[in-house]
Amino acid sequence: MITTCVIGGAGFIGRIVVGELLRRGDRSVVVVGREDEAQHLAPTVRYIQHPPNTTTERLIETLGAVDEVIDLAYATVPGTSFQNPVNDILVNLPEAVRLFEQAAKLPLRKFVWVSSGGTVYGPADVMPLNEDHPTNPISPYGITKLAIEKYAHMYYHMNKLPVVCVRPANAFGEGQRVYAGQGFVGTAIASLLDGRTIDIFGTEGTVRDYLHLRDMASGIVAALVDGQPGEIYNIGSGEGHSNRQVVNLLLPLARAQGITPQIRILPERPFDVKMNVLDISKIYNHTGWKPCQSFAEALRQTWDWYVKNYTRVPADK
Amino acid sequence: MITTCVIGGAGFIGRIVVGELLRRGDRSVVVVGREDEAQHLAPTVRYIQHPPNTTTERLIETLGAVDEVIDLAYATVPGTSFQNPVNDILVNLPEAVRLFEQAAKLPLRKFVWVSSGGTVYGPADVMPLNEDHPTNPISPYGITKLAIEKYAHMYYHMNKLPVVCVRPANAFGEGQRVYAGQGFVGTAIASLLDGRTIDIFGTEGTVRDYLHLRDMASGIVAALVDGQPGEIYNIGSGEGHSNRQVVNLLLPLARAQGITPQIRILPERPFDVKMNVLDISKIYNHTGWKPCQSFAEALRQTWDWYVKNYTRVPADK
Repeated sequence: MITTCVIGGAGFIGRIVVGELLRRGDRSVVVVGREDEAQHLAPTVRYIQHPPNTTTERLIETLGAVDEVIDLAYATVPGTSFQNPVNDILVNLPEAVRLFEQAAKLPLRKFVWVSSGGTVYGPADVMPLNEDHPTNPISPYGITKLAIEKYAHMYYHMNKLPVVCVRPANAFGEGQRVYAGQGFVGTAIASLLDGRTIDIFGTEGTVRDYLHLRDMASGIVAALVDGQPGEIYNIGSGEGHSNRQVVNLLLPLARAQGITPQIRILPERPFDVKMNVLDISKIYNHTGWKPCQSFAEALRQTWDWYVKNYTRVPADK
Repeated sequence: MITTCVIGGAGFIGRIVVGELLRRGDRSVVVVGREDEAQHLAPTVRYIQHPPNTTTERLIETLGAVDEVIDLAYATVPGTSFQNPVNDILVNLPEAVRLFEQAAKLPLRKFVWVSSGGTVYGPADVMPLNEDHPTNPISPYGITKLAIEKYAHMYYHMNKLPVVCVRPANAFGEGQRVYAGQGFVGTAIASLLDGRTIDIFGTEGTVRDYLHLRDMASGIVAALVDGQPGEIYNIGSGEGHSNRQVVNLLLPLARAQGITPQIRILPERPFDVKMNVLDISKIYNHTGWKPCQSFAEALRQTWDWYVKNYTRVPADK
């Protein structure tokens, strides 16, 4: 039995990653999370509540008792990183380096560090983006994610840390936080259910590579199991959808619920990368992973989940 | 008359950059330096002593009164950055971001930020390296330099900061500090004059792109005058010399002084990039700059300077 530690394993993607690890049957799971979130996890999971972004003795001890690590924790999100780029550095970089430094001393089988396929590349003309494409992020978040990839590479090169970096596309699915800058899909669905206007910046909006969180989780686990240390893997759908296309897929679902959608076209924003679609052939070639669900099907399931589970927030609130 | 502020303008390369700016005749120069180093500068230069790596009101005021900035200051060097990678982050990144943020609010003509051609690329197979080559540094110093390039690009893209990044090769020349990890040439010359053994790691040692500091300074000024905002330029010789080749050029000079050179071959070190030679065609195409001096000639002049000016440190000290 392999023991896997998932840092940030009680969050939106983390919970599904943990479920995916347990389903394999060959792994026991330790989750490190910042809040008292153990209730979201299976009873067989050992849960360690730990202050975020601190590499304490306790965390080092925890890592010393496991075989593998997946690190999903991050203290900032792309949108808010602009408000305080220095804070984005201070809360993310030093601790990532301390964690790699400690992890490099342990006999780990693999360490998966979760970067950001949506932000590290920055603006680009040719799609889809493979892992060798130049990386010129235009958000502080994207820059710190990229810098940590570079530290990961350094600790791989210098200290043989068996680290694999993954660059996930835009995750969506059941349970995503809405109105929080965590992704267009969740916010668009909530806006429809709340009777709020959906804002699209530019006629079609931006184009993103949306991946349902179950596929995202299986991709992260594939990188853990079969990814090669020192390598970087995109995890996405390989397909681009504009905001407008997402909304167009949601409209019939909304109308079937008696909802009249309201859409507003606003000017493009300078800080939005217009298009981001990932080439996912490398992870397929190295691990055999590819997404299982079509976007339309996964979007419909996500819609159904929000219709049943979302607590509506009236538009005038 | 254009006013240029040179941050770090009293240092090894900075002084020569200042001299180069003054020689043009169309610029007045303000130097910001950390110590009381005004005596090294021409009397027409305005010198502002300022604590390093802090963006104070006084520094912002200074920048508000100039047309251009060259930032040569950095708080760490490649060799020592390994001892404390977290410190390397903390003393360099936040202040660079604060400086860009403030500079982006000013009507500057140009801002030259000095990166590192010797460290940002990391190990590579094909030489010479052009600016589009992948960047995978294997030192903390190289990673923070690269991260700051990315912030520079972000402030260019988002806030129109007219920033030009330059990636200098290995500078050498008169006045370089010796035995301080600042470069092989100065330390090799001092070792010969002191009767110390020159250590070479691997049969031939590493291959580096050595550029005399006068050529380095004129390259930095070329990037300031004619470089295009948002661009990155290598500044080097375009030629590689191994440690062994450098020593071979110094041997006859040493023997002419009655010195018997002592050379020791040690095992290669894992943290040394084996080869680093820069492609300098981009800066030539954009600005017309190219180096003026041959390596052998500049090395001979540097040797002569140390013979006259270097205070010898006995080997047994």
